Amino acid sequence: MNVGIIGLGLIGGSLGLDLRRLGHRVLGCSRRGPICQAAIERGVVDEASLDLMLMAKADVVFVCTPIAAIEPTVARLAPLLSDQTIVTDVGSVKGDLVSAAARHWPNFVGGHPMAGKAEAGLEAAEAGLFERCAYVLTPLEATPKTALETVAEIARSLQAQVYQCSPSAHDRAVAWISHLPVMVSSSLIQACLNESDATILELAKNLASSGFRDTSRVGGGNPELGMMMAQYNREAVLYALQKYRRTLDQVIYQIEHHDWEQLNQQLQQTQQARPEFMLSPPVPDKAKR
Amino acid sequence: MNVGIIGLGLIGGSLGLDLRRLGHRVLGCSRRGPICQAAIERGVVDEASLDLMLMAKADVVFVCTPIAAIEPTVARLAPLLSDQTIVTDVGSVKGDLVSAAARHWPNFVGGHPMAGKAEAGLEAAEAGLFERCAYVLTPLEATPKTALETVAEIARSLQAQVYQCSPSAHDRAVAWISHLPVMVSSSLIQACLNESDATILELAKNLASSGFRDTSRVGGGNPELGMMMAQYNREAVLYALQKYRRTLDQVIYQIEHHDWEQLNQQLQQTQQARPEFMLSPPVPDKAKR
Repeated sequence: MNVGIIGLGLIGGSLGLDLRRLGHRVLGCSRRGPICQAAIERGVVDEASLDLMLMAKADVVFVCTPIAAIEPTVARLAPLLSDQTIVTDVGSVKGDLVSAAARHWPNFVGGHPMAGKAEAGLEAAEAGLFERCAYVLTPLEATPKTALETVAEIARSLQAQVYQCSPSAHDRAVAWISHLPVMVSSSLIQACLNESDATILELAKNLASSGFRDTSRVGGGNPELGMMMAQYNREAVLYALQKYRRTLDQVIYQIEHHDWEQLNQQLQQTQQARPEFMLSPPVPDKAKR
Repeated sequence: MNVGIIGLGLIGGSLGLDLRRLGHRVLGCSRRGPICQAAIERGVVDEASLDLMLMAKADVVFVCTPIAAIEPTVARLAPLLSDQTIVTDVGSVKGDLVSAAARHWPNFVGGHPMAGKAEAGLEAAEAGLFERCAYVLTPLEATPKTALETVAEIARSLQAQVYQCSPSAHDRAVAWISHLPVMVSSSLIQACLNESDATILELAKNLASSGFRDTSRVGGGNPELGMMMAQYNREAVLYALQKYRRTLDQVIYQIEHHDWEQLNQQLQQTQQARPEFMLSPPVPDKAKR
């Protein structure tokens, strides 16, 4: 199969490495010449070009640009492709993007491979990045079944676990398990910094160990990611934040009013429930920092 | 030196293993006969007894009971000890405990070795548990300098990093970096469970990966620990929770009002500040679960 990849960063580059290894012919587009060159040298693509015309030869095109560029890219692609070509994206928020892209190209399948690591860019690309990761496909009612099945097949060939749901269900779910944790975790660090006694803050920094390290990890990550979540998934993030705030208010109330029974009930419940969120096998440190 | 250990659980047992290895004679007390027996068999202590009288031979006594039992234990010990004996504890909240214990025994030094792991009890005890961990000593003005220095010396011999501050400074600092994270993290899990759409919750559980795993870890831990923090360090935990809630409210406000500049500022700030909390070398997975 001829597979096109537009945007040769961490995700696009890693896709290229895997897909070539699987025997596909990989055609890459980047807006920067040196990236095209590097992609060929690193064996990420068979051919690379600054010109989207290269995609005319592709059976499936992965749009791996930043979210804001996905719809415009699909619009620019549309006149260049033959009718059977399947276009998919890897954006981490789906929102109205899927229907917007489908208006430009009916054979569009929304996708979100949930893989990543701290580093970005082509240099960070690696084979096997998607192994054991979730790969969510978000078809609309009108999405052609063959297009959906083709993208699902490719995702499974990357050893990813394929899930399928509506764009809005995807956004609500990732708000809970990916975007809310970033806001919660960043606010933890920020609240500590708001401690008015400098000696206490200094001591806290010295005493922080694994508990603080883990709880603060995603809040200390790349600000661009957090901004993307808040801006592109605003509604679902707000919904989750407001539910979270009510839960937190209950905890504060319980401690204020010595309601130890209720607090104990929550702590018991969250201890019991956490393993249900850990069903997928841990991915060896890829997303760690 | 003859070192007494009262309470042969994870901390008491691990202390025994290290102190014997360092050449001390270790005398252990437990309220349970089989634990005394097991402690001798595992080489945690040289002698063990149900009877606190064994402590009469000790130069230094570590009280390693649950927090609620520390003061009563010091009170019961006092008539049995010779005047020079130093008594210290390992409680994770200091509060009024240090002055209360010092009233029973002036040669008392408050201590908190910040080591732990998911498992509890004597079976979980291990040599080297305190290596590279913080060991906080919380003397009062009246605490005898020689007693303080002796306990500090023992802590350093365990390869721990010794810090010294007032009991209240200790409690404020650990509220920030240990107790607040538990409440924040438990509330994250609880808020997800409050999602009213079962399909979304199920999807969220399936999609959760390393970000959620880390942010939820301490909130999914032993409920007894969380209860201990809330009950014994209530004031400092409430102070931290209220500051945290205000920070969270700001984040909600920023997202509600599209104040991306402020949100970006916080995310930048927390990314920059987090490494300041990571100065101590990471302790290999001991405290992980």
